[in-house]
Amino acid sequence: MKLVRFGEAGRERPGLIDSKGQVRDLSGLVPDIAGATLSATSLERIRQTDPETLPLAPAGQRLGACVGQVRNFIAIGLNYADHAAETGAPIPAEPIVFNKAPSCIVGPNDDVVIPRGSQKTDWEVELALVIGERASYVGANEAMNYVAGYCVCNDVSEREYQLERGGTWTKGKGCPTFGPLGPWLVTADEVPDPQNLSMWLDVNGERVQAGSTKTMIFTVAQIVSYVSHFMILEPGDVITTGTPPGVGMGMKPQRFLKAGDVMSLGIEGLGEQRQRCVAFEGPAVDTSRSWKGD
Amino acid sequence: MKLVRFGEAGRERPGLIDSKGQVRDLSGLVPDIAGATLSATSLERIRQTDPETLPLAPAGQRLGACVGQVRNFIAIGLNYADHAAETGAPIPAEPIVFNKAPSCIVGPNDDVVIPRGSQKTDWEVELALVIGERASYVGANEAMNYVAGYCVCNDVSEREYQLERGGTWTKGKGCPTFGPLGPWLVTADEVPDPQNLSMWLDVNGERVQAGSTKTMIFTVAQIVSYVSHFMILEPGDVITTGTPPGVGMGMKPQRFLKAGDVMSLGIEGLGEQRQRCVAFEGPAVDTSRSWKGD
Repeated sequence: MKLVRFGEAGRERPGLIDSKGQVRDLSGLVPDIAGATLSATSLERIRQTDPETLPLAPAGQRLGACVGQVRNFIAIGLNYADHAAETGAPIPAEPIVFNKAPSCIVGPNDDVVIPRGSQKTDWEVELALVIGERASYVGANEAMNYVAGYCVCNDVSEREYQLERGGTWTKGKGCPTFGPLGPWLVTADEVPDPQNLSMWLDVNGERVQAGSTKTMIFTVAQIVSYVSHFMILEPGDVITTGTPPGVGMGMKPQRFLKAGDVMSLGIEGLGEQRQRCVAFEGPAVDTSRSWKGD
Repeated sequence: MKLVRFGEAGRERPGLIDSKGQVRDLSGLVPDIAGATLSATSLERIRQTDPETLPLAPAGQRLGACVGQVRNFIAIGLNYADHAAETGAPIPAEPIVFNKAPSCIVGPNDDVVIPRGSQKTDWEVELALVIGERASYVGANEAMNYVAGYCVCNDVSEREYQLERGGTWTKGKGCPTFGPLGPWLVTADEVPDPQNLSMWLDVNGERVQAGSTKTMIFTVAQIVSYVSHFMILEPGDVITTGTPPGVGMGMKPQRFLKAGDVMSLGIEGLGEQRQRCVAFEGPAVDTSRSWKGD
């Protein structure tokens, strides 16, 4: 199944894509594509419903992030050998784990806001997985039982905040609009081999990333197992699994996003996203150094 | 006001502490101590209610974490000059920001589980603040308007996972039960100066941490402002603000927690916590290296 959330931001309704590509309204069946709705039992109940019996969503609706109410949005760093190389980092011996603030999650085609004063906003097409069942100390051999499905994620990143402001990567990964998810949550039964999906990202129509999940250092199963040894994963948690080569930081000269740029990206079988970059709109005074009160 | 959540884990009800120290049930008035309930308007509505008109909670109820449904649990590292010194780290020029998995949050007196195979589980008494209103690009001069209140947090940490497993600190900060919050959420109006609160932590009755929020490097206002420049803070988000000296990692020789140890900790005006350390209970086989499938 391809599950979606449609409607205005913050008021999305659950839906699914029928065999004709139309959005059907699931809100009579489940409250949201989130949390407990993602359990195997609940997904099976939706699967048993004939889409033809569900009301059609009004045409032209905005798509929201394909999973709602996310509490834990985890990301894996440097998980493609050739991407690690382009950033100058060594191949990690264990998965690098960091968090994106859940408030950065937006729809697949929403605008991406360049943070105020940012000079180094960058793109990252990634395969994200969504947890369906509570996972704690799960072995790699059983880890896939805990995955409800997959979606495209643009792990938008501000490289100065990530790497030059001290401490962990957190500062450059959770800025507003830095987490487009969707268009669809494709349930795991329809993704027989998540380690063999081609993926790409264009900036203004120019192909900058082209890769495949084949070249991941750590597989989806290894990642779910690994993370579950450090924290309890809960239904609706999202893990985005790293990006292949071709980010702006790795180019010579480096290239970063500016207002007006358009990113389009996709993964085989998981659909496509398209985001326009826009300037931050807010008070003209740059308060980015005002945190000390000066 | 002192707000609480009482009842069995996962099914807590909202409450407040009346003038006699009894728990009154707020569930007729608000759904939970969480999210939108923490806005200034909502808190004022609770404040206008005579506690005597609220039903008494049954005696002897467990206290849960004093804030529920937390999505973003942020922590500030090395925020006390003398703690930075004891860990051998330089004084940070900007706040160090990392995340704790929201699934680690537990009640103030719940058991703390030593992760399977862990040798370096450590304690950290901290002042945590809870966000009441959405905050984005907020100046330090106005940041306190976004704080609903304060509570005690034990930022339990696994030092090997945090520092020796590669990448960011995330791995050592979000293990199950590593985030006791409470006993109460004390609303900001009752904490006139959050930068002048004494704090302490005992292990098995021995005082190991004794400090004051006076010696923070970055104040609550500066932290809220700073973090709001990197991510949108939402009502119910928690920021724990760093620990004073006296953690086990800083001792000579180093000292870490083992099953049977008891931590008690408190902050002036914010109440006390008490946690018993227990061994992980689960499959006897250590799967902590099973994430590669071997």
